Amino acid sequence: MILVDGLVADGLSPLDRGLAYGDGVFRTMRAESGRVRLWPAHYRKLEHDCARLAIACPAASVLGADIERILRVEPDCSMKIIVTRGRGGRGFALPARVKPTRVVASFPLPLPPAGCDEHGVRVRWCDIRLAEQPALAGVKHLNRLENVLARSEWADPAIAEGILRDGRGQVIEGTMSNVFLLARDRLATPALDRCGVAGVQRERLIALAQRVCRGCEIGPITPERLLAADQVYLVNSVIGIWWVRALEARTWRRNELTPILQAALQADDG
Amino acid sequence: MILVDGLVADGLSPLDRGLAYGDGVFRTMRAESGRVRLWPAHYRKLEHDCARLAIACPAASVLGADIERILRVEPDCSMKIIVTRGRGGRGFALPARVKPTRVVASFPLPLPPAGCDEHGVRVRWCDIRLAEQPALAGVKHLNRLENVLARSEWADPAIAEGILRDGRGQVIEGTMSNVFLLARDRLATPALDRCGVAGVQRERLIALAQRVCRGCEIGPITPERLLAADQVYLVNSVIGIWWVRALEARTWRRNELTPILQAALQADDG
Repeated sequence: MILVDGLVADGLSPLDRGLAYGDGVFRTMRAESGRVRLWPAHYRKLEHDCARLAIACPAASVLGADIERILRVEPDCSMKIIVTRGRGGRGFALPARVKPTRVVASFPLPLPPAGCDEHGVRVRWCDIRLAEQPALAGVKHLNRLENVLARSEWADPAIAEGILRDGRGQVIEGTMSNVFLLARDRLATPALDRCGVAGVQRERLIALAQRVCRGCEIGPITPERLLAADQVYLVNSVIGIWWVRALEARTWRRNELTPILQAALQADDG
Repeated sequence: MILVDGLVADGLSPLDRGLAYGDGVFRTMRAESGRVRLWPAHYRKLEHDCARLAIACPAASVLGADIERILRVEPDCSMKIIVTRGRGGRGFALPARVKPTRVVASFPLPLPPAGCDEHGVRVRWCDIRLAEQPALAGVKHLNRLENVLARSEWADPAIAEGILRDGRGQVIEGTMSNVFLLARDRLATPALDRCGVAGVQRERLIALAQRVCRGCEIGPITPERLLAADQVYLVNSVIGIWWVRALEARTWRRNELTPILQAALQADDG
């Protein structure tokens, strides 16, 4: 089901700035048994991303009503919210008055790679490098051509994800996930102040790390350091957490901390 | 008037990848007296940009029929074409089979700044720096948040354009135009192999420079070199060519070559 500004719709104005310029933000969330997991955190991140682009974020109650309506029909789904700046303006200039457009849509939940909790997933390096744009770094905005190009680098369904580096060669993220490494019972994840998307699941794992392991460092991560890790993880709100069995030629066995992290993230999120 | 896949429409699927990821390209052209100026060059550029993203470009005859239909009603307008990859795919992965979406829409021609041919225009430096992404450089794709942010840096209607630099501080382009400088009867314009949009009017002025002045150099341009120029120009297919009277504190008088360049670009374009 697709709701555009609360109405069942299959149409959005072709003049919407979301289409014209990618002038908007989005969220992809997991709904189970009629409930969107981590909704408060997702809404906070949506508000934050809208603020970064000076877009007026629709009220939580308004989006919540759209979501409820979809959940009644599809209690288990991948739920996507798009908020664009709306229609209008002369070229790139912001319109003097503009009403943001909201799209709330459900999709079937993707099937995880078979046995991935137990056996991990295979991933690869992407060739394309992420451009550095501090003004947009961390924001889940609609300018996602780099992700499209990165994901088009492979077609082998046995490869679950590709890892992206920036122009300096530092590890940043997966095409659709955030990356963590475990080394000596401590997590580390790339800083995302120059490029990348700071996801809700990333934020949650950073917080969990304080009580599940010896905390989480946020900083630069070289490919060498990733390869030297005791374990590598990929997280997002739909997949949860995957552990990496193989990054091209480098392989890992499941670390003893991995099921603990999996269980902690899976636990009730209030 | 707006045509989506050839039909009068005010709706585009919210599942279109053009909205979801900015996965598409566009053109903005000038129509006068029922004819789109530089149409063959615009179509070539559209084909080229589609090829860069591996999108199947609609046939010139198909787009031409949409354009003709609009021109019968609006013979003088700004004509925009958007071609997106179309609907579908699981996340960022390209759909196995996909039909590109085409949008052809007309807008009122913008009024040029009063007396700009004779008196030039005022411009400013933008603060935001363009990110370097060679995989997308030169392409007029739908990921245009940098331009939106750049254009939002000023509201003074007396400022006609903002000039963008890259992360190294080199001059790249205007928010909606390409930049040229004139020095010792020779033009120069930034290379656009790391960022920026290579427009049709830019290509045309580079070609014209061979017979109107002592050619055009394409290469790196520092802000200092721009400020030291005999004249600075901004070009695009809708505005034609503007000469810069003031770039913040630096001012110029109209160079004697300027009306010659203006006339050459205005001349019939076949």
